[in-house]
Amino acid sequence: MGAALTFLDRLKQAWAQSGSLICVGLDPVRSRLPAIFRRSPSGLRDFCCAIAEATADLVCAFKPQAAHFAAEGAEDQLASVIAFIHQRWPEIPVILDAKRSDVGATAELYAKEVFERYNADAVTINPYLGEESVRPFLRRPERGAFLLCRTSNAGSGWLQRHPPEAPLYLRVAAAAREWNRDGNLMLVAGATYPAELAQIRQVVGSMPLLVPGVGAQGGDLAQVLEAGLDVDRQGLIINASRSVLYAGTAEEGSQFEDASRNAALALWEEVSAIRKGWR
Amino acid sequence: MGAALTFLDRLKQAWAQSGSLICVGLDPVRSRLPAIFRRSPSGLRDFCCAIAEATADLVCAFKPQAAHFAAEGAEDQLASVIAFIHQRWPEIPVILDAKRSDVGATAELYAKEVFERYNADAVTINPYLGEESVRPFLRRPERGAFLLCRTSNAGSGWLQRHPPEAPLYLRVAAAAREWNRDGNLMLVAGATYPAELAQIRQVVGSMPLLVPGVGAQGGDLAQVLEAGLDVDRQGLIINASRSVLYAGTAEEGSQFEDASRNAALALWEEVSAIRKGWR
Repeated sequence: MGAALTFLDRLKQAWAQSGSLICVGLDPVRSRLPAIFRRSPSGLRDFCCAIAEATADLVCAFKPQAAHFAAEGAEDQLASVIAFIHQRWPEIPVILDAKRSDVGATAELYAKEVFERYNADAVTINPYLGEESVRPFLRRPERGAFLLCRTSNAGSGWLQRHPPEAPLYLRVAAAAREWNRDGNLMLVAGATYPAELAQIRQVVGSMPLLVPGVGAQGGDLAQVLEAGLDVDRQGLIINASRSVLYAGTAEEGSQFEDASRNAALALWEEVSAIRKGWR
Repeated sequence: MGAALTFLDRLKQAWAQSGSLICVGLDPVRSRLPAIFRRSPSGLRDFCCAIAEATADLVCAFKPQAAHFAAEGAEDQLASVIAFIHQRWPEIPVILDAKRSDVGATAELYAKEVFERYNADAVTINPYLGEESVRPFLRRPERGAFLLCRTSNAGSGWLQRHPPEAPLYLRVAAAAREWNRDGNLMLVAGATYPAELAQIRQVVGSMPLLVPGVGAQGGDLAQVLEAGLDVDRQGLIINASRSVLYAGTAEEGSQFEDASRNAALALWEEVSAIRKGWR
């Protein structure tokens, strides 16, 4: 029955089915895990799966972060988290936050890592090496890539806003629009710079934007939505990691799931109220 | 007896002891390996160790590339290659080519991955997220980081040369000089743009430069040396990967080691002849 769904098709379905623009970032820091997971060899995996269970009905995507697993050699746990999400909620796309980048032949190998080995649906990538380094991540229409454009962290403007009259982040946005032949290239644009997010939206039309920085980093949600929603009042994947994962204290044991769910729910309600207020 | 050697101390010792500016990049592609390794589960590791044995007396550094291992889930083989080099030739620094980058807390985890888990002496990193993303890789004085500045690949100028009157790669070079409080931040500057390499050398003084692109990519060695040597006629780590690794054909069996050694030796002789001609 026709071709497989593209990544963009799947993302739009996830937005529609969930009624949510929220993504929960899975950044498991062992020392911050609830006591029941902290000393378990599979603690990173088990914590992420528990968080996914607690929040799955509130999200349009999950975003595991690679370094949190790689730092302790837990690649198998990362693969297991992604497999678990695919098996339980096949409709929810998994974005692997790895910020990979290299020249063409090596970028092909990173694409193999994220899409074949880990079976992620999408990945974050870095634009510094140009189109050649981006292209290998776009060859599978059912998988996507989020290119860093304007990151949420302090100090990133030094490079991304250079030069002021024609800043790099707008150059990256324009390039992404041009490189996006198959509809599976998207951007990362931080919540902490909503005016720049609005400029990026102007440049890229309805291209989906992954927006970190609303939780612990303190980006303003109303400004983000006003700046970033597309004409269909979608187009955003608003990520929260630490503010959801560590909403409970490490000592609370099984209560952490309620605390994380409540944090995700509060964000969901805040987004919903803002969207409703504009209708 | 005093503090441990810094990364820069170790690199200078390696230059002095080896009399070489050459680095062999360890990029094992399974389909290109000699038949004896191609079907072996530990083939990536065993091939890299054989290449290291064949070339160790000709190099100032080895540079394993992370994606080649990650694509097939062979992190253990990568760790084993690095451990083998450290054990056999403790004087040769190992640079892990991983081009990692993320915001501060996550960059800390990548630094843990490369320096603790893999025990690499140095790593390649990407400047797109600014100083915050660089700093965690500089906290260990005995370890170093090579920041991407001007990469050797076609199409990278789109971003790195922007804007023409104040190109980004010179901005990165100037920032690296400023960020380099402990002498362990260095740059990547490709052999394919020797005029730009010369500009970078002007900006950063004697800071070591890792130079890819002389082998398969065809950078001109005499131009690279003229542009990049520092006042002590050192300061360069000239990398060759594919042109050394795959100098023999895949069918030649044990002859591949001779072919690889001869390719590295030819590069070593060419560099030596050029340096001698200038004395």
